[in-house]
Amino acid sequence: MERILNTETIKYIGKNVKVCGWVNSRRDHGKIVFLDLRDRSGILQVVCHSNLVEGMKEEYVLEIGGTVQERPKEMINPELETGRVELKAEKIEVLAKAIALPFDLKTLNLSLPKLLDFRPLTLRNPKIKAIFKIQGQAVESFRNTLRNLEFTEFQAPMIVPSNAEGGAEVFHIDYYDYDAYLAQSPQLYKQIMVGSFERVFTITHVYRAEPSVTTRHISEYTSLDAEMGFINSWEDLMDTCEILVRNIFSDIQKNCQKELKILEAENPLISEKIPRLKMREAQKIIFERTGRDNRNEPDLEPEDEKEICKFAKEKHGSELVFITHYPTKKRPFYTYPDPEDEDYTLSFDLLCRGLEIVTGGQRIHEYKKLLENIKKWRNEPKDFSFYLQTFKYGMPPEGGFAFGLERMVKQILGLENIREACVFPRDMERIDQRLSLLQPRTRKSSVRSKPKKKRS
Amino acid sequence: MERILNTETIKYIGKNVKVCGWVNSRRDHGKIVFLDLRDRSGILQVVCHSNLVEGMKEEYVLEIGGTVQERPKEMINPELETGRVELKAEKIEVLAKAIALPFDLKTLNLSLPKLLDFRPLTLRNPKIKAIFKIQGQAVESFRNTLRNLEFTEFQAPMIVPSNAEGGAEVFHIDYYDYDAYLAQSPQLYKQIMVGSFERVFTITHVYRAEPSVTTRHISEYTSLDAEMGFINSWEDLMDTCEILVRNIFSDIQKNCQKELKILEAENPLISEKIPRLKMREAQKIIFERTGRDNRNEPDLEPEDEKEICKFAKEKHGSELVFITHYPTKKRPFYTYPDPEDEDYTLSFDLLCRGLEIVTGGQRIHEYKKLLENIKKWRNEPKDFSFYLQTFKYGMPPEGGFAFGLERMVKQILGLENIREACVFPRDMERIDQRLSLLQPRTRKSSVRSKPKKKRS
Repeated sequence: MERILNTETIKYIGKNVKVCGWVNSRRDHGKIVFLDLRDRSGILQVVCHSNLVEGMKEEYVLEIGGTVQERPKEMINPELETGRVELKAEKIEVLAKAIALPFDLKTLNLSLPKLLDFRPLTLRNPKIKAIFKIQGQAVESFRNTLRNLEFTEFQAPMIVPSNAEGGAEVFHIDYYDYDAYLAQSPQLYKQIMVGSFERVFTITHVYRAEPSVTTRHISEYTSLDAEMGFINSWEDLMDTCEILVRNIFSDIQKNCQKELKILEAENPLISEKIPRLKMREAQKIIFERTGRDNRNEPDLEPEDEKEICKFAKEKHGSELVFITHYPTKKRPFYTYPDPEDEDYTLSFDLLCRGLEIVTGGQRIHEYKKLLENIKKWRNEPKDFSFYLQTFKYGMPPEGGFAFGLERMVKQILGLENIREACVFPRDMERIDQRLSLLQPRTRKSSVRSKPKKKRS
Repeated sequence: MERILNTETIKYIGKNVKVCGWVNSRRDHGKIVFLDLRDRSGILQVVCHSNLVEGMKEEYVLEIGGTVQERPKEMINPELETGRVELKAEKIEVLAKAIALPFDLKTLNLSLPKLLDFRPLTLRNPKIKAIFKIQGQAVESFRNTLRNLEFTEFQAPMIVPSNAEGGAEVFHIDYYDYDAYLAQSPQLYKQIMVGSFERVFTITHVYRAEPSVTTRHISEYTSLDAEMGFINSWEDLMDTCEILVRNIFSDIQKNCQKELKILEAENPLISEKIPRLKMREAQKIIFERTGRDNRNEPDLEPEDEKEICKFAKEKHGSELVFITHYPTKKRPFYTYPDPEDEDYTLSFDLLCRGLEIVTGGQRIHEYKKLLENIKKWRNEPKDFSFYLQTFKYGMPPEGGFAFGLERMVKQILGLENIREACVFPRDMERIDQRLSLLQPRTRKSSVRSKPKKKRS
């Protein structure tokens, strides 16, 4: 007999079926035992004679043959998709046993470090699962939207020859006999691709050796990157961003209702057009609202990002706001300066509920200007000779942006820590296990990876 | 006026339009100049007065306003989608200049190293573009097929704490004060995810520090991974693989006709069911066909893979063949032994036109058996304590497989070298630029990445 899913049982009342799943809970009433069986579709109540389920504890994996029957009226559970039925078990096979749980997997009343220490287990909780269902949907919507807009997907490399962009900290790799680094972004590669495909996107992991622990940073995150050529204006980029955000939100609304409900989450409010404010305007508004004078600061502080989102919600009914025209000095060398005031750039961040979730802008497409900037930012032009080919041989006006996947999910769901939105987060304290439990690298003995040994 | 794409001009005969693109070629006939303009949709012939295009060379980026007109009958080019029309240019704006090309971008008669040295430029050749259009389609088909089969997508981490799987060589990372490695596969993570989601897939980059140069290996490649629980038999895995391969081929056939034609490529033949042969059977067949006696070898040699594919094509009309039951000793610790002969495993490779493009198999889901194998393979159980949680707390029978994206594209298109199917290939000789032009790492001075300096 073919297995059916738990939620399919409601179509099989009176029929003999086979279901499979994990024991979510067990309630003993003398000779009668009720099991809640959990599979990828949901929960099903199973009624069994106690002889059938001897010793079967939570998280045992079972295959159960039996008859689907309607529950007595007073036993109907409207909270459950299968709440009107139950399975009368006739045959149970144990596919795998489980040891006693170290905590209650249903209430999951754990600190975040504990939650992550036990990730393989805590992932089975429906709230945790819901986060990653929604994350998968967000990625899918990002791709679908861009494919419909004729963007081509490509695979950007994550091993790079130098710390090209400057700024954030990088991880070093022993790359054969050479030094290499983990990419901080696919920026240079997506620009190269625009020189051929005009519109491209890539979904990659990027790396930041953040030497601090915050609720907003992880060392490996998922970047949803897009880049487009032949723009009429840098505002085209924000327009495309807006289309994406609306599609992601509406797909989540449509396809992840169950998950949003479990998480008690609601999509952020968006007004008809997401407000767009220059950074200096935003600082002025913040000063007027709070008296906090950051009007000469080169960037928004975390508390500023929160305040300006509060303003956008009150004034425009939007929990998202574009902040534009960041100072030239604070942005990478390839950022296009505003022709009206070259101290500021045609760049933007998209803030959502107080946190940046997208960053983007127009790029310099003129070869000479770009070369000058590389020097001005104290980089070596020879380190960029590969990238510079694109501009030597003709590049249209272009720009792009990158969504931080885990940040976006964190903000949509109102999670407190970005680690909750990353299934296997890496930071300076953890790679699956806590690093403090491992042997630190002894610099003198210079531990090397295997290839080194081979080559020597 | 809104820009239209080159291939859209055929709907605008007699109308004034704006197009944008790169000068693909220029032909001067006295006062009349013909430009072939290239954009993401294709080529359009533009007729201009020579005054309008003074100094404009190949790869200049232009915005052209003009009138679409039908070509004289004798000038119609049936090879071109826009072959019945041309644009009479009225206004041309140079969006970017280009320097003289170092070689003919249209014939692209270059050695592979040269082709890669100039990747940003050579990517503009239609044959090269076609490869990556098809690659994008393959990835999209993989995802769509699995989403339809209720697989959940997840993001697997690529920084891992140890060389968990053994076998292939790994790259070492200076991870804060600890040692870490680049993942060779998302294997352990996809298994962990099965413990919660039953069916998962992930598209990640994986890393092999291959200390040799072959036409089949690159140091960073794209792995299309899937894993599924509650299988009835390990043959379910090959069945799912077959569904995927058929969908990928048929989507390419349907959506990439133009690209297949440019590349003069045809999808591999598949018979109604892809033949499945045990490795020992394959070796016997090879011995009978060629006299080459590898019947006691623990794996197929590259020449064996070619020969058995030849056999499958001749005998079964299939350019794909599953080879199953690889020896237990040659597979990773988690591979399920065949209950009928524990020296062999319930594992398989899918060969396509002489090369392995998929590898997979059933995994050991019983905690005790897995723990024993970890020890037997001389690994430390404590290095696997995170992963082992999944099995301690109940895991159904399960398995999965991984497609090597670049290999698959190489085989579909009949490319000679895997580097042709990777837009920015990394190997022991190259990261964008040739490594031999860079400074080798000096072990004694122990070059470190920036974060190290900061923390010391």
